[in-house]
Amino acid sequence: MTPEQSVVATAIHSWKLQIDRADTFFSGLTDAQLQHEVAPGKNRLIYLYGHFIAVHDAMFPLLGFGPRTFPELDKPFLTEADDRSADLPSSAELKRAWDHVHSRLLVEFENLSAAEWVGKHTIVSAEDFAKNPLRNRLSVLFSRTVHVGYHLGQCVLAPK
Amino acid sequence: MTPEQSVVATAIHSWKLQIDRADTFFSGLTDAQLQHEVAPGKNRLIYLYGHFIAVHDAMFPLLGFGPRTFPELDKPFLTEADDRSADLPSSAELKRAWDHVHSRLLVEFENLSAAEWVGKHTIVSAEDFAKNPLRNRLSVLFSRTVHVGYHLGQCVLAPK
Repeated sequence: MTPEQSVVATAIHSWKLQIDRADTFFSGLTDAQLQHEVAPGKNRLIYLYGHFIAVHDAMFPLLGFGPRTFPELDKPFLTEADDRSADLPSSAELKRAWDHVHSRLLVEFENLSAAEWVGKHTIVSAEDFAKNPLRNRLSVLFSRTVHVGYHLGQCVLAPK
Repeated sequence: MTPEQSVVATAIHSWKLQIDRADTFFSGLTDAQLQHEVAPGKNRLIYLYGHFIAVHDAMFPLLGFGPRTFPELDKPFLTEADDRSADLPSSAELKRAWDHVHSRLLVEFENLSAAEWVGKHTIVSAEDFAKNPLRNRLSVLFSRTVHVGYHLGQCVLAPK
């Protein structure tokens, strides 16, 4: 591997590690446990489960991989706060969406060259990207990886 | 910038973003607020403040940058759980240690080439590194960056 291929492989590995941790965490919960809040009055675990899927599904258009698969998850898990009266998908449906999004993302990630990783993502304009070349695909991957860690740190505080 | 320089700059930027967020968070707290627990019976904010410093100070020997500066922080903030009866440094002392560790780390980070970033860190043997080249300096940077996010996600849940 060249240094730049190695850098990219390391970044993808770091993402995968967080996704696997989150997958293990959520897959080990009962439907009743998914209703627990991370702290009194804060997000329920099921909200964060769906939140990860919605945020990661949105990485497809953001990184130029094509359209997203589950736009219907945005309202309950992204644009709106955790609403206890909302009619949410079952944990089995969320697990299927989780697996779909993450397995497809990984295929896309592994197809990108280092030059493509440091190319601009789809939201930044060519002009703004010229001013700040750190607004690249890789920065999206890093920020989403840290975002998983951020909420996982909260999830482990939820009462068992 | 070449792709490999850009990849490394993006990774350092992602670290810096988390460190700045954590710095802003902790610097905005009173001594009384630093005593708050992230959740009932869980770590106090002051423990996590010192924990970050101890963990990041240990990156110096781990990444081959030289000896650490604050080994005395290990016992209260790393090897032992948060002990309410421990005599901890003041928030002003922690802030000085924080600034020292993070400003020096950044200088070291910016001196490394992409090839050095994907070189082995000091804990893995040459033999194990040959088997798994992802056990490199960069993987340490990623894992520490996510670790900051993980505990910051908890910190924001603490009562104000």
